[in-house]
Amino acid sequence: MATDYVTGQTTGDLAAGRQTISPNALIASDRVEGTPVRRSNGEKLGTVERLMIDMVSGTVAYAVMSFGGFLGLGEEYHTVPWSALKYNTALDAYEVNLTDDQLREAPRRTGEGRDPAFDRDWEEHVHRYYNATPYWGI
Amino acid sequence: MATDYVTGQTTGDLAAGRQTISPNALIASDRVEGTPVRRSNGEKLGTVERLMIDMVSGTVAYAVMSFGGFLGLGEEYHTVPWSALKYNTALDAYEVNLTDDQLREAPRRTGEGRDPAFDRDWEEHVHRYYNATPYWGI
Repeated sequence: MATDYVTGQTTGDLAAGRQTISPNALIASDRVEGTPVRRSNGEKLGTVERLMIDMVSGTVAYAVMSFGGFLGLGEEYHTVPWSALKYNTALDAYEVNLTDDQLREAPRRTGEGRDPAFDRDWEEHVHRYYNATPYWGI
Repeated sequence: MATDYVTGQTTGDLAAGRQTISPNALIASDRVEGTPVRRSNGEKLGTVERLMIDMVSGTVAYAVMSFGGFLGLGEEYHTVPWSALKYNTALDAYEVNLTDDQLREAPRRTGEGRDPAFDRDWEEHVHRYYNATPYWGI
């Protein structure tokens, strides 16, 4: 049962009181916002800043992550497909395994209030980059 | 075309700079949070506090709205199905037409950090109350 599966995965997180996950695996948007993003080894890469929602379908399409000052870069924003995010209770973070080079090359937003055009070509590029399933179907 | 339809609806909103909506009709979660909820006549009922996301499907299931001090009630939270919300550019708000009685009887959260059990019976009740399409399919 999917619900039990997900709830089981988040036991440690619930115990830590960081995320509120209901029996039906609902999570509040403001609990996702601010959650760290880490590599499997625990190294922190950034933080989830916000979610991007497809207004037509009501589907969460992307998480926008900030990667502040990492690799000598300035504040950067990466738009990561929601389907590419895996929550890891041991890390207490979303787990994203990208190398330094992959991070440098990753599709990004350059700053607050400067959204890239989310045209379909760009969206396809982003999903290929993260090997993620498109939220819009194929 | 759905995208044009939605984008067209939000022209006034974009001009007002209150919501950032892309060509593909994506909206940022932190733009939804804080958006007022009004009746068609402009009367303010409350504010969207957060979204509840189904982690399994990645679908936005509910908006949680605060109705502070309205009708002599204390701070109250209503969990409204996302599919019941319509953004109205003229109102610059989500439009929800509930009578005072309907508001008093509406399913609600009683306070921060005290989520009701989102069991399926309760969810079905909420969706019937707002005559909304269930996000989990039938």
